[in-house]
Amino acid sequence: MFAKIKKWKQGKIKTAYLLALAVFFLGAYIWRPSFGQNNTTAGDRMKMTAGSMEKMRQSAAGLERSEEFHPFGLFSDPRYSSMERISLIVVLVIAVLGLLYAVMLVGQVKRADQGTARMQEIAAAVREGADAYLFAQFKRIAILIVVITAGLYFTYTGKVTAFGVGRAAAFLVGSLFSFCVGFVGMRLATVGNLRVAAAARKSYGEAMQLGYRTGTITGMLTDGLGLLGGTLIFLIFSEQAYEALLGFGFGGTLIALFMRVGGGIYTKAADVGADLVGKIEANIPEDDPRNAATIADNVGDNVGDCAGMAADIFESYEVTIVAAMILGLASFGHKGVIFPLLVRGIGVLGSIISTYTVKAGANDTSDTALKSVHRGFWIGSVISVIGFFVLGFVYLKFDSTYLQNNPVALAGFPGGNPDQLPWLANFGIANLDMRPAWTCLIGVMLAIVLNKVTSYYTHTSHEPVKTLARACQTGHATNIIQGFAVGYESTVMAIIVIAISIFLSVICYSGGFRDIPPIFIAYGVAMTGIGMLTLTGNTISMDVFGPVADNANGIGEMGYDREAMERESPGSYKRARQILADLDAVGNTTKAETKGIAIGSAVIAAVSLFASFIAVIAVGSEDKITQMSTTDYLREAGKLTVASPMVFIGFLIGGAVPFLFSSMLIRAVGRAAFLIVKECRIQFKDKEIWAGTKKPDYGRVVDICTTTAQKELIGPGFLAILTPLMVGFLLGPYALGGFLAGMILVGQLLAVFMANAGGAWDNAKKMIEDGIYGGKGSEAHKAAVTGDTVGDPLKDTAGPAVNPLIKVMNMVSLLGLGLVLKYNVVQEGPLGKEAKPMIGLVVAILCLLTISWAVWQSKRESAEMKEMDAELSKAAEGAVPAGH
Amino acid sequence: MFAKIKKWKQGKIKTAYLLALAVFFLGAYIWRPSFGQNNTTAGDRMKMTAGSMEKMRQSAAGLERSEEFHPFGLFSDPRYSSMERISLIVVLVIAVLGLLYAVMLVGQVKRADQGTARMQEIAAAVREGADAYLFAQFKRIAILIVVITAGLYFTYTGKVTAFGVGRAAAFLVGSLFSFCVGFVGMRLATVGNLRVAAAARKSYGEAMQLGYRTGTITGMLTDGLGLLGGTLIFLIFSEQAYEALLGFGFGGTLIALFMRVGGGIYTKAADVGADLVGKIEANIPEDDPRNAATIADNVGDNVGDCAGMAADIFESYEVTIVAAMILGLASFGHKGVIFPLLVRGIGVLGSIISTYTVKAGANDTSDTALKSVHRGFWIGSVISVIGFFVLGFVYLKFDSTYLQNNPVALAGFPGGNPDQLPWLANFGIANLDMRPAWTCLIGVMLAIVLNKVTSYYTHTSHEPVKTLARACQTGHATNIIQGFAVGYESTVMAIIVIAISIFLSVICYSGGFRDIPPIFIAYGVAMTGIGMLTLTGNTISMDVFGPVADNANGIGEMGYDREAMERESPGSYKRARQILADLDAVGNTTKAETKGIAIGSAVIAAVSLFASFIAVIAVGSEDKITQMSTTDYLREAGKLTVASPMVFIGFLIGGAVPFLFSSMLIRAVGRAAFLIVKECRIQFKDKEIWAGTKKPDYGRVVDICTTTAQKELIGPGFLAILTPLMVGFLLGPYALGGFLAGMILVGQLLAVFMANAGGAWDNAKKMIEDGIYGGKGSEAHKAAVTGDTVGDPLKDTAGPAVNPLIKVMNMVSLLGLGLVLKYNVVQEGPLGKEAKPMIGLVVAILCLLTISWAVWQSKRESAEMKEMDAELSKAAEGAVPAGH
Repeated sequence: MFAKIKKWKQGKIKTAYLLALAVFFLGAYIWRPSFGQNNTTAGDRMKMTAGSMEKMRQSAAGLERSEEFHPFGLFSDPRYSSMERISLIVVLVIAVLGLLYAVMLVGQVKRADQGTARMQEIAAAVREGADAYLFAQFKRIAILIVVITAGLYFTYTGKVTAFGVGRAAAFLVGSLFSFCVGFVGMRLATVGNLRVAAAARKSYGEAMQLGYRTGTITGMLTDGLGLLGGTLIFLIFSEQAYEALLGFGFGGTLIALFMRVGGGIYTKAADVGADLVGKIEANIPEDDPRNAATIADNVGDNVGDCAGMAADIFESYEVTIVAAMILGLASFGHKGVIFPLLVRGIGVLGSIISTYTVKAGANDTSDTALKSVHRGFWIGSVISVIGFFVLGFVYLKFDSTYLQNNPVALAGFPGGNPDQLPWLANFGIANLDMRPAWTCLIGVMLAIVLNKVTSYYTHTSHEPVKTLARACQTGHATNIIQGFAVGYESTVMAIIVIAISIFLSVICYSGGFRDIPPIFIAYGVAMTGIGMLTLTGNTISMDVFGPVADNANGIGEMGYDREAMERESPGSYKRARQILADLDAVGNTTKAETKGIAIGSAVIAAVSLFASFIAVIAVGSEDKITQMSTTDYLREAGKLTVASPMVFIGFLIGGAVPFLFSSMLIRAVGRAAFLIVKECRIQFKDKEIWAGTKKPDYGRVVDICTTTAQKELIGPGFLAILTPLMVGFLLGPYALGGFLAGMILVGQLLAVFMANAGGAWDNAKKMIEDGIYGGKGSEAHKAAVTGDTVGDPLKDTAGPAVNPLIKVMNMVSLLGLGLVLKYNVVQEGPLGKEAKPMIGLVVAILCLLTISWAVWQSKRESAEMKEMDAELSKAAEGAVPAGH
Repeated sequence: MFAKIKKWKQGKIKTAYLLALAVFFLGAYIWRPSFGQNNTTAGDRMKMTAGSMEKMRQSAAGLERSEEFHPFGLFSDPRYSSMERISLIVVLVIAVLGLLYAVMLVGQVKRADQGTARMQEIAAAVREGADAYLFAQFKRIAILIVVITAGLYFTYTGKVTAFGVGRAAAFLVGSLFSFCVGFVGMRLATVGNLRVAAAARKSYGEAMQLGYRTGTITGMLTDGLGLLGGTLIFLIFSEQAYEALLGFGFGGTLIALFMRVGGGIYTKAADVGADLVGKIEANIPEDDPRNAATIADNVGDNVGDCAGMAADIFESYEVTIVAAMILGLASFGHKGVIFPLLVRGIGVLGSIISTYTVKAGANDTSDTALKSVHRGFWIGSVISVIGFFVLGFVYLKFDSTYLQNNPVALAGFPGGNPDQLPWLANFGIANLDMRPAWTCLIGVMLAIVLNKVTSYYTHTSHEPVKTLARACQTGHATNIIQGFAVGYESTVMAIIVIAISIFLSVICYSGGFRDIPPIFIAYGVAMTGIGMLTLTGNTISMDVFGPVADNANGIGEMGYDREAMERESPGSYKRARQILADLDAVGNTTKAETKGIAIGSAVIAAVSLFASFIAVIAVGSEDKITQMSTTDYLREAGKLTVASPMVFIGFLIGGAVPFLFSSMLIRAVGRAAFLIVKECRIQFKDKEIWAGTKKPDYGRVVDICTTTAQKELIGPGFLAILTPLMVGFLLGPYALGGFLAGMILVGQLLAVFMANAGGAWDNAKKMIEDGIYGGKGSEAHKAAVTGDTVGDPLKDTAGPAVNPLIKVMNMVSLLGLGLVLKYNVVQEGPLGKEAKPMIGLVVAILCLLTISWAVWQSKRESAEMKEMDAELSKAAEGAVPAGH
């Protein structure tokens, strides 16, 4: 009976989901004929802006060009020098080089020794689970990708079909790249962990290098694919790349959101489930082999930490380059676009060189290994900084010919003359403008400082984690309270660091020249993002090294044949285990250090994309962005004031979303965990499994995790995609702007709070397990375990998922803005009364209904949870009558 | 040695504090001569705005008037009808009536039976502790009040000395009123609790009525003083009331912040300290009479829940009337100011009548009592709503004579004609405009819905608290995690309710008339705040009833003489205890229901004050606010765009402040708790106390709580006052606007999260203590206690303090804006290059240094904490060697 209802419900959910997608698809198709009709013509636009800072606008030639499309037009465009064409090709080559470096490393890792059959068996089980998860996810996401690709094509509101095709195709490529990075990252982690465990039996250096290089593969894949996509789009579309870039960014971001959310739910559901079942079934330890959830727990580490994190950073990499290219075009002209691509190219070279220097000797310790990793990061930083300053000296020259061809850049210099910039901006060299290079440097420094802040608040060697460990002595509650204090404070420090770096990049542009158009300042902020993610190769290497080493340690624990090893060489078992434990510790440190960057980059990218958002409102449609004048821009920016009640309402709603999203994810983890508990308990009832003579069916739990994670990501996914559309259609484009601002602010604060409080609780537990305050099993340890368990869903599910949430909402807002301007209910925006509010109302109501459904779904308690509750409370109440 | 250092440190802190105040005082005096010189003259201002919607501006006559000052000018001003003069006098009479009603109730309560000597002894101990606390606080605050009063006078930037005097005097009165409300509220709670306990021995109805009326005294005091102050200020200054109103609001707000923060730290330090000492000293229960912290714990309830809450709501009451009066003047002219005063008058009448109807029979139960309280609220609501609609029909008529005398109101009607408003706004009646009445109605509904939302998320009869109780079955961590999910969700719902009500009041004004000036919309939002707090009398009655009943229950528990009572009438002891328990439950419910209003009102007031903020920027100095044109307004509002990086930076910093503030308060509680633990342990070492033969020195712990709470509020106080000044002087007025927006958003979200999560944990514990899931002493109960303890500092210290924090920062920004415009470093604002950045830089740096000092102070661990830690860890490690 219950099962029937459950099945029926599941069927209903699926049907509703597919139905919603179909409606979206159909709606998009029906609207299509009406698009493109109400556009103000280029002539109208010219009239509107006539007389207002005319020289800042694109030349009439540029204006016409945007109505036609010549693929690879920059090769025949006389405004591009052959130097520039060559350097773009060089960037493309560097991107390919990065990918080849990754392939080479794959070979190195694959060829390494795979250890004993027992070790291979364990690794295979984990690998299969992880593959199954990603395959299931791909099946679901594939439909969505196809639908959205079609939707993007059909909802294109401009006139040039090629741009619509470009946007859709770029979305497809972006999403596939993102999935690919996540998939390969995870796949190789499950390959690498075995090799690391095998190598640890022989040499510290070899094991460490294998682990780090496994990470580097994912890192270079991210670098290579990100750079390849951006460069190709620019080569094909040159100055008309806006649409395609947005599609590319959206593709990467959306998939990252799903990987993060799905992976986050998976990993913590398995973790919490395994933990709970131990508690309920009378003190079975979490990693007891009779517990059917153990393999799922290990799979979860890979799914969450590798696949999710890799897709997430890939998406940051993509979005920052998208923001820099869009704003570069609107500010400095094509040099503004090519410069970030070249900087990224240098970054990739820096990563290749510096990651290859990371190695350790056969008998090194974790200290020297950590030093080597850090040295790698510093070498990469130095190469990059020198690289982009040299590049700046050569390339960032704005002579009169360039300014004639790119009149938009004139407004960026005092009196239209680069020589009048302050000395620090041009070192007295004619036509030079080093401000873009300076802002990159700010970005590199931001990355380093954010690493340090994260490490200060979450590492055992600093005061905050120590205070948590101390607080454990006085109980569960004091540990949690202290975690609140530390987490709150850490998020304040992180946001102040970000605010200072934005301030510095603003000063960089407006310091010597107060009347600079805001689009240049936005470009400066975007370049800070570019600088911040220059060393993505190293960052991901450090990050992925964490779970690889963690898993390798697990394989060593379960798979080493102690007797055989000791027979061969006495003491080798102990030595190998020590090596793996050391590597695990190094991995924990490096992984934690990189966390701050992923979240911080979301804010930087979002701030710079604000400028694009306003530019689109200003010109009424996204393909005319290059036609915007500063007057248009300021007029529309002025309507995004927090003093406007509509904007403020959007702003309040925007701030609410990260809280709602986090609440949904936390509940989802709980629900999924209960399913796992139930399955494990059923298997325990098999007497052979309970006795330890029969292997439990690990696969069933893996299946449950996989299915549930997929199901649970629908609700948060709808929330992320539909809320900005609802706000935009119902309250207008300015409210949507306020929405984005509120969402970015609260998202950043909440994400860092959850990530750092969770990290600090985790490490406080480790400190106590290392022997202080009574060590394992003491009362202090129990309090520390509570802190760790509370932190788990915060730091591994909700916290990291807020990062792609911010970017998805930003992208959806930008992509949907053209439609919002035409169909919003309040008829706000430059189109005013031409707009058709009824359509907007229908869309807004549909979005609202779907979001409400998603929230309602997230609050329901599954049949399993109710069953379990009933049983538990019966047991609790039965405790007394049992004495009869 | 240690004591010496401690003493030296304490001395240093005090010196630093006094020094800072002195510098502030001196600085203000030195600056004074330079003020008022760089003002643009009225002529310049006219030139700047010439040609722009001229008819919306104040008449030239009004312009001149603001340069002169005639106290009580409205009695000779021909533009006021005698009806208006009379009705203002009537409002004054109603305010006095409210106060007389309070005095009458004081008599009733005081005359009631005081019970046995034992009961009186206990009540006296609590009362003395509470008095000592407030006296100590007053000593400190008095200096601050004097300094700020002088500072406000000296930093007045306008030309009319009387306004400077008015601002300073109003501040003084506002702060004294606020303190008075808090003091009387607490004093009477400590008087009432004894009477309630005594009355419970005879009759349910009498006890219930005494408790409720004790609350009503505070409620009517709040109503009466708030209305009296606002009306008097308007009578004296009429249209020039802006400065004085701001001073009045700031006074109330600042004291409320200190009462909230100090009270919050006191109550939770005593609570947590008493709890910890029990744990450390081998399972002494929390309320063991040998525990020296028990009386301090009871004092804390009064200090935090009565004094803090009353001052807090008083301040909301003040600030909303300030906002409505300022905006009323700038929109509808003097009818816009008088209407909110009249509405408040009706509210006071409604409260007097409805609170007097609340009673219960001699043998009633908690259900009927609760119904009576609710019926009182509904009666009050109906009286108020009918009242202000009738008032609207009579008073809100804008005929041509009025519009001629108040030309500023013309812009509020389509074509300057009220008859062209939609039917719903004037019901087809000539010259009528009921929109202000409608927005009041929205406010009343907002209060009711916020009550319901709070009650849904924190009351045991709804799903959220039940899920928490269920989660306790699976341990400490699942309870905390579920609390996160519930708390996050509840804050989302609250902010969405607020967003909807703002949306409705916007629609109210802009629905039929799109081009309405923003100042009218802001007035609508302010009137929503007026409506929301119409029934402040009832709200505070319900709120204060909570701690009174709680304390009465405590007095009954400790003070009833069981044998004597049973001798007199068998069964009477049990019956009386049951009555007190029932009343306690009713009080918990009513208290919880009113919580949402206090925080919500901060957001509403802050949103409406935004408009004043921009108006001041637009005209360059606060006393010219009535000269602003809509064009000026929109121009300056447009610069407050989130698209401006400076605004965005301010916005990020603003969002960080509530997190930092909460972190500081949470740490302060921990630090203070450790001091108490230490004192209790010293007293335990006295063998007689330990044996229970000697009474511990309760007073010493009360003293420690008092001193520490005073000391610990300095840091958060500096943060609240100086951060807006730092942002304003360093980053300019627009960044300050962004700062306010970010602070309001994050403050609201965080405050509700902490309050509701804490409330839910508290009630989940109560549910389990009532017997489910194993009841008291079970594992589930332990988990529930952890949740409750975690929630304590969140819901009783940090959460409620964020509410006055929001308003203090708003007020400081408004009051400091004149100086910020003249001295900011980035030279933003209409004064531009006339500004003197160096002075701003010095002030900003001083602020920054002081804030950094405060943050550093908040992070230090006291000597007591370190000592205790060392002892505890020695004990933990000693556990093994002890076996030697």
